[in-house]
Order: sequence, then C-alpha cells, then structure tokens
Amino acid sequence: MTEATRDIEALIDLMARLPGLGPRSARRAVLHLIKKRGAVMMPLAKAMQQVAETARECLNCGNIGTSDICDICRSEKRATGEICVVEDVADLWAMERGQVFHGRYHVLGGTLSALDAIGPEELRIPKLVDRVRAEGIAEVILALNATVDGQTTAHYIAEALEGMGVSVTSLAQGVPIGGELDYLDDGTISAALKARKAF
Amino acid sequence: MTEATRDIEALIDLMARLPGLGPRSARRAVLHLIKKRGAVMMPLAKAMQQVAETARECLNCGNIGTSDICDICRSEKRATGEICVVEDVADLWAMERGQVFHGRYHVLGGTLSALDAIGPEELRIPKLVDRVRAEGIAEVILALNATVDGQTTAHYIAEALEGMGVSVTSLAQGVPIGGELDYLDDGTISAALKARKAF
Repeated sequence: MTEATRDIEALIDLMARLPGLGPRSARRAVLHLIKKRGAVMMPLAKAMQQVAETARECLNCGNIGTSDICDICRSEKRATGEICVVEDVADLWAMERGQVFHGRYHVLGGTLSALDAIGPEELRIPKLVDRVRAEGIAEVILALNATVDGQTTAHYIAEALEGMGVSVTSLAQGVPIGGELDYLDDGTISAALKARKAF
Repeated sequence: MTEATRDIEALIDLMARLPGLGPRSARRAVLHLIKKRGAVMMPLAKAMQQVAETARECLNCGNIGTSDICDICRSEKRATGEICVVEDVADLWAMERGQVFHGRYHVLGGTLSALDAIGPEELRIPKLVDRVRAEGIAEVILALNATVDGQTTAHYIAEALEGMGVSVTSLAQGVPIGGELDYLDDGTISAALKARKAF
C-alpha cells in the first residue's frame, strides 16, 4: 500500500469510529468527500479543526461552549431559580429545541452505573448540590431518560437534594403527542393511566 | 445563538451532508467528536485536510490517488493486457479486496443515464476506447453493477469496443456464496439456472 492509499485508509478508519458509521459507510462518506473536496471536505476539515480547538465544557453546568462558562449560564435572560438536570449535551439541545424551558441546565454526562464504575463523582452530582446551595435554586427539574439507569440516577439525585428546601420535579410520563395507543408499550399506557387528569 | 453554538451548528450541518448521516446522527457524531477532541477529532480534522489537499483523480483510469497517474496504473506488477471497468472507486476497492484481479482498472464515475443527462463523454468511455487502442488490451472485463443502468452501460461499452479485436467479458451472475435460494429474487435464480454448469 502506498502513501496515497494509506492516507485515505487512515481517514476511513477514523471516520468509521464515529457513532452511526461503520467501515462500509465510512468508505462511502470518504469517497463522497473526496469527490466534493472543495465544496464539502475542506470546509468540514476546517470546521472540525475550529471546534476541536475551541470547544470546552462549561465549568458550571457541563454544557459545551467556547468559554469556561457557557452562554446559557452567563445569559441574563435565563431564569436563575430553576435547574434542569439532563444526562447529556444532546438532551440539553433537545430541551432547547422545545423552547419551553427558560432556566439553566446541569449536564450529568451519563447515568450512575455500578457495572461501568460510574459513581456520583463522575456525574457532577456534588457540583449540582453545590449549585443548588450557592445559586438559591427553588426547583430542580429532573429531565433524565425514562430508562432504568436514568430513573435510578433521578432517585439518587432526589435523595441527595432532600432537606435542602428545593422542590424536585421530573418530566411527566404518558402518551407522546401523536402517539397511537396500539403502538405504545404497556409501561407507558399504565403510567399514562395512573397519571390521568380531569379533561 | 452565540459564536460557540454557531461553530458547532455549522459543523453539524456539514456532517449532516455526508451520505449515511442525517441531522440527528450528525449531532450525535459531533458530540462524540467534541468529547474525544484530542484522541479523535484533531486527528480526523488533520487527516481530512491532508486528503482534501492531496487527493486527485488518476488522469488515466479515474482511480483516486495523490498523483496524476495512480499507483495501480504505475505499478509494474499489474498485468497490462486486462482492464476491469467499474462504475465507481468504491467498486474498484471492492474488487481489490477480492485480491483476484491483477490487471488495471477503468473507473467510469457513474452509469449512462438519459434522465440525468449523463452520456459517454461524462463517463470516460472515449478514454477507455483510447486506452484499449493505445495499451494493446486483450480483455476488457465489465464489472458493472447488475442494475438496469449498469447493464445498459455495459452494453454500450461492448458496442463501442466492437471490431477492435478485444475480448469483452462480464462478471458471472448467479447465486452469491453463502446465499440461500429462498431469499434470492426470481431474476437471480433464473440467471443462475440459465448459466448452470457441469458439477
């Protein structure tokens, strides 16, 4: 294998490490990029370099930005009394797309997991407790995934915040908008029935 | 939206243009990259820049390399009397993985298509005819996809090479290795039956 092929192979190997891409789709993506060297590949390489050099985690909440304290934590437009706890930055982005929550966030960076040796320290939970104390938080909204790990972590956080005079809430569970009962799992239906409300 | 988020959004938009990635998987990929800035993102950005700057198409066969004439065309180890015609560089790579063909290639860059206004000129077919004449080719192997467009293009090339004293062959069609009859389409089974051979 020569220099040329080696460079391309190396690029394919790196691309194949991305979530959602395997060796085959990485090859297709790289060929596509090479065909559009000027229009796509160069800008993509530059954008990637740019973000790789500037992106960092917010020291306060764990969100991704370009400074030590992220835009949301610094923004004066955001309500200061509420913290929404999410597992991951992707979940923060999902909440922001909803455009309903106007407080601040706390990104755990995962869920508690005995198997993977992920404890509270790895998840910025002590930092959350500090923030609740220091920022005069009135409500902590647990927006964790409705999975076993997510709910375990939610329970742990609720216990950690007990007696601090903060109201701990979690997202409602029920039928998703546009959802058809026939396609929902039993757990969702039973949760929605238990949490039924006056029409 | 601030500077930080803009850079990340721009990167996500560029990633989402890759085949096999949509907006959602591009977001996941970018978050993954940001988490592994040093180990994956930086090397990937560098590798991409490197390939974007050096990759070019072989003037002879259309393969991708770093010089005007690609490694395969320059290699003295490859048989000179055979040209394998493929649609795309991905197909050339697939043939090379097979490690059975030791001649040279000719990459068309697509198939004839009246709808997309792709004629012989766009597909390096005149160049193929020139090569057959100039390089003293004995056999042209048509390794085009077994699709309607691929086979149309194969027929066109076979006609263009008629009377040039070159043997034109195509890949065998039949049951793929490991294939189960019950899962094969009717066309494949009938092709395999027609091309049956002594056991």
